[in-house]
Amino acid sequence: MRPVCHRPAELAFAAPPVPPAPGRDPLVVDFTHEGDGGHLRVPGFWDGRDRYRVRFSAPVAGRWNWRTHSDLPALHGHAGVVDVGAAPEGEHGPVRVAGGFHFAHADGTPFRPVGATVYNWLHQPEDLHRQTVEVIADAGFTKLRFMVFPQAGDHVEHHPELLPFEHGPGGWDPARPVPEFFERLDSSVELLGSRGIQAEVLLLSTYDGGHFGLDTLTEEQDATYLRYVVARLAAHPGVWWSLANEYDILAATRPDDRWTRAGNLVAASDPYGHPRSIHNWLRLYDHNQSWVTHASVQIGQAAQDFGRASLLRDAYSKPVVLDEICYEGDLDLRWGNLAAEELVHRFWIATVSGCYASHGESFLLDDGSLHIVRGGPFHGESPSRLGFLRRILDEVPTPGLDPIDPWWDGTFVAGIPTRHYLQYLGRSAPDAWTFRLPQGHRGDRLAPGQRYEVDIIDTWDMTVTTVEREFELAEVRRNEATAGDGEPVALPPGRPIALRIRRLD
Amino acid sequence: MRPVCHRPAELAFAAPPVPPAPGRDPLVVDFTHEGDGGHLRVPGFWDGRDRYRVRFSAPVAGRWNWRTHSDLPALHGHAGVVDVGAAPEGEHGPVRVAGGFHFAHADGTPFRPVGATVYNWLHQPEDLHRQTVEVIADAGFTKLRFMVFPQAGDHVEHHPELLPFEHGPGGWDPARPVPEFFERLDSSVELLGSRGIQAEVLLLSTYDGGHFGLDTLTEEQDATYLRYVVARLAAHPGVWWSLANEYDILAATRPDDRWTRAGNLVAASDPYGHPRSIHNWLRLYDHNQSWVTHASVQIGQAAQDFGRASLLRDAYSKPVVLDEICYEGDLDLRWGNLAAEELVHRFWIATVSGCYASHGESFLLDDGSLHIVRGGPFHGESPSRLGFLRRILDEVPTPGLDPIDPWWDGTFVAGIPTRHYLQYLGRSAPDAWTFRLPQGHRGDRLAPGQRYEVDIIDTWDMTVTTVEREFELAEVRRNEATAGDGEPVALPPGRPIALRIRRLD
Repeated sequence: MRPVCHRPAELAFAAPPVPPAPGRDPLVVDFTHEGDGGHLRVPGFWDGRDRYRVRFSAPVAGRWNWRTHSDLPALHGHAGVVDVGAAPEGEHGPVRVAGGFHFAHADGTPFRPVGATVYNWLHQPEDLHRQTVEVIADAGFTKLRFMVFPQAGDHVEHHPELLPFEHGPGGWDPARPVPEFFERLDSSVELLGSRGIQAEVLLLSTYDGGHFGLDTLTEEQDATYLRYVVARLAAHPGVWWSLANEYDILAATRPDDRWTRAGNLVAASDPYGHPRSIHNWLRLYDHNQSWVTHASVQIGQAAQDFGRASLLRDAYSKPVVLDEICYEGDLDLRWGNLAAEELVHRFWIATVSGCYASHGESFLLDDGSLHIVRGGPFHGESPSRLGFLRRILDEVPTPGLDPIDPWWDGTFVAGIPTRHYLQYLGRSAPDAWTFRLPQGHRGDRLAPGQRYEVDIIDTWDMTVTTVEREFELAEVRRNEATAGDGEPVALPPGRPIALRIRRLD
Repeated sequence: MRPVCHRPAELAFAAPPVPPAPGRDPLVVDFTHEGDGGHLRVPGFWDGRDRYRVRFSAPVAGRWNWRTHSDLPALHGHAGVVDVGAAPEGEHGPVRVAGGFHFAHADGTPFRPVGATVYNWLHQPEDLHRQTVEVIADAGFTKLRFMVFPQAGDHVEHHPELLPFEHGPGGWDPARPVPEFFERLDSSVELLGSRGIQAEVLLLSTYDGGHFGLDTLTEEQDATYLRYVVARLAAHPGVWWSLANEYDILAATRPDDRWTRAGNLVAASDPYGHPRSIHNWLRLYDHNQSWVTHASVQIGQAAQDFGRASLLRDAYSKPVVLDEICYEGDLDLRWGNLAAEELVHRFWIATVSGCYASHGESFLLDDGSLHIVRGGPFHGESPSRLGFLRRILDEVPTPGLDPIDPWWDGTFVAGIPTRHYLQYLGRSAPDAWTFRLPQGHRGDRLAPGQRYEVDIIDTWDMTVTTVEREFELAEVRRNEATAGDGEPVALPPGRPIALRIRRLD
C-alpha cells in the first residue's frame, strides 16, 4: 500500500540484537522532503530477533529521501526514498494545541477532547478489550486514557501474563523489551484510531504498588523505555503522551525534576510533537514547563462550581483538561460516587470555563472491578449526555470557546466574540432568561444592529430548541449588550439548561 | 549611632560623578562576617555631586569586614570594618516567604500582609503624604503599595515637580538620577517602616499614558534605573519589590520576557532577598518563574466566592496575594464600586483560601481624585474590619493558615491541622453549626479524644464570642471528624460569621 500522510510507513532493517547504549536509539533516520516540506529525524527501535524498524509518518505529501545513522554497522548508511500520497479523505493528522487553549488536527480540523478513562484496558482479555472500544466510540467519546504498564491494587481483578520487559538477574531490563507486548500496544492504538479515538498513553505507572515492580525502575531504565515506546508509537497519528496518572503518588522516590527530565526526553524523542502532559494526585505539577503542551489536572472541585476551572487557564496559558473530576458510580468513596446528573453538570461547567474534562465510571461490578479499571459496557447515564455535549462542541466553528469576560462576568459565557456563545445556567435554571451578552476584552466587538438567534439546550434530555425570535442588539454598554425588545425568554423550569447564542448576520 | 542588624548602615565615598557603564554599578562592596555570618556583595550608588554611598544591612550581629571594588580608582580598594549590634527589641528584619504560602520576618516572626494601596502616594504634598501613613497605620494595615514614578490619567489631579531623572537631549537619562527625588523615596520608606508598614515599591509605571514619558525608557535605561533604585533601597528592612502594577497594559511594547529579565535583574541586584512580584491587568504573568517570590494577582472574581483563590496556590506553589479584588467606593465602574461588606467578605474568603488580599478605596473625592491615587483619610467602612481581621491573623501561631482539604471539602476550612482553624460561613451564615473538622492529607491527624474550643467571630461587628462548651472529637472518619455531643451551636442569624476552632489539650 502506498504511504500516505499522517499514517505510519515502516522501514525494516536486519542486524544482530544489541541493547542500545543508554541515552541512544539503536538507529535514527533522517527524512528530508524534496520540496519545502522540511526534515524529520526519526528514531528507530528493535522489534525482536534481528529486526529493527523505523516508522515514518509524513506531515506532507511528496518524495522524502531518507538515510540511516547507527552505531551498529549493519544499520548505518542505508538510504532510499519514500513517495507519500495525500492523507485519505477524513483523516486529519495528529492533534496539536490550537487557539492557545484548544486542540486541532494537523490540517486545522478542530479536535474536542471528550475523554474516557479505562486505566487497565490494555491488559484485558481480547473480547473485553475490543468491546470497550466499541462502547466508548458508540457513546461519542473522542479520547481514551489508558496505561502501558499493568495496574495493581483495589478493584484490579485481572493480572496479565504479558509484560513489557525481559526479567534479568537484576530485575526488569527495559533494554530488552518484549516485542509481543509492544505489538499489542501498537495494535491497540490502531484499533482506537480506527474508531476515531485518540490514544492517551499513560507511559509510567504509579499504580503498581509493588505488585509488578515496574514503578521502581531507575531513571536510566525509565529513559530507555521512554525512548523505546515513543519510537514505536509516535508515527501513529492519534497518540497523546501522559507521563503518568497521579504522578505525585511516587513523590517519596521521584522528585519533580525527575519527571521534568522524563517530559523533556519524550518531547525531544517525538518528531511529531504529540500532546504531552502529566497528571497529579495531591499536588499540581508546574504546567508552565515548556515540555507540557496542556495542563492535565485532577482537582475534584474545579468543575463543581462556576468561576474556578478558568483560573487554571489563566495560570498556565495552555489548554486545561480536567482529568478526574470524580466518577459516576456507587462506591463508598467520594471520588467514585457521583450521580450522572452531577458529572454531566461538571462537564458543562468545564465547557463554559473554556476547559475540557474526562469521564470515568466506577460502579462496583460483579467481578469486583470497575469500568475505569477494565472497561466493558457502560452502566451509567452520563455517557450519552457527554456524546451529546460533544456534538454541540462539533458545531463550534473554531477549535474552541473561551470565557468572554472571565474575571468579571458572573454569567459565565464562553464563546467566539460576536459569532457563537454557550452559556450554562446550571443544574436548575431559572424559568426565564433575558437576552444579554458580555462584551469582554478580546476579539470582535458587540455593536448595535447585530442579530442573534438563541437555542435552548436541555443538557440532560439532549434537546435543542430554537427560540422563535431574532435578537437584535440595541444597547451596548461598557461591559454588556442587550437586545431591543427586552422580553424574557421562557425556559423549562428546573432543568439543566444551556443557551447557545449564534450570530445571524 | 552604632549599626544594628537589619537597619541600613551607610558608607560614603567621594569621587567625580561619572554615569555608571551600562550593566555596572559604580561600586560594589564585599562584606564578610568574621564569624559564620556569611558574605554579602552590596552594590553602591551615586548620591549627588561627588558623593557615593553604600548601604549595608547586616543579617547577623558581629564584626563585618568590608572592601570596595570599582572601575573608578577613587572608589576602589577602600576597606574597613563595621561592628554591628543586635536588632533592637521589636525589630524582626526583612520579610521572606515562610511555610511555602506565607511570610515571616528574618527572625521567624510571622508577617501577615493586609495591604493598602495608594499608587501616587509618593508624589503628594507633604502633609497629605504623612497623613496617609497615619491613617493606614491606625487602621491596622501592614503594607502599602505605591509607585516610584508619578501616575497620570483619570483621577490624578496633582502632578509633581520632582522627577526621578535628569532630562538630556535624548529624553530622560536614568544614568543621571535626581538625588533629591530618591532621598524623598528613602525617607518615605523609612516613614512607613517607623509605623510598622512594609513598603511595596512599584518600580515601573504602566500609568504614564505619555504624560511623563517614563514608560518609554529603553530596556537598558530600565536596567540602569532598577540597579540604582535597588542599590538605594534594599538595605531598608521593609522593602518589597513589585515590577509594576498591571504590567500587561504595556504588552504592545514590552513582551513578557523583558519583564522576566527585569525581574531577574532585581533578584540579582538585591543582596537581601526582599519579596519580588509582578501584578497583572488582563493576563497573568508566569508566577512559576524563579525570580518571583509570590504571586501578586489581579483577578476580581477570585475572592468573590469560595473555591477559587486556592487554585492559584496550587498552580504556583507560592504565596498568593490578591492585589486588587475591586475597591470599596462609589465609582460608576465595576472595579470601583464595592460595598464595604463585600470587600470584607472577599478578604475573609481570601483568608480561608490560604491567600492574602489588598485593600483600596475609590470614593470620588471633592478634588476629583480617589484614595487609591492620593491617600488621605478613609471614607469607607472596610478598613476597621480589615484591621480586625489582621488582629485575628496575629493570633495564628504559625506564619499562616492553609486550606485543609481544598479540592474536596465544601466547607472551606483553613488551618494548622489539629491546632488552629478558621472557617468562614459567608455573608449570611446559617443559624446553627454542628462541630465538624475536615481531615485533609497533610500534617497532624485528627483523632478521638482531642478537645477543641470554638469562637464565633462576627466579621463585621468585630466581635469574638467563645462558645461555652468543649468539643471532644468522637468519630473520626476517612475525611472528617465530629464531636461527641453532636448538639448544634446556635449562630446569630444572617450575620457574616467566621468560626475559629482551637485545640485545648
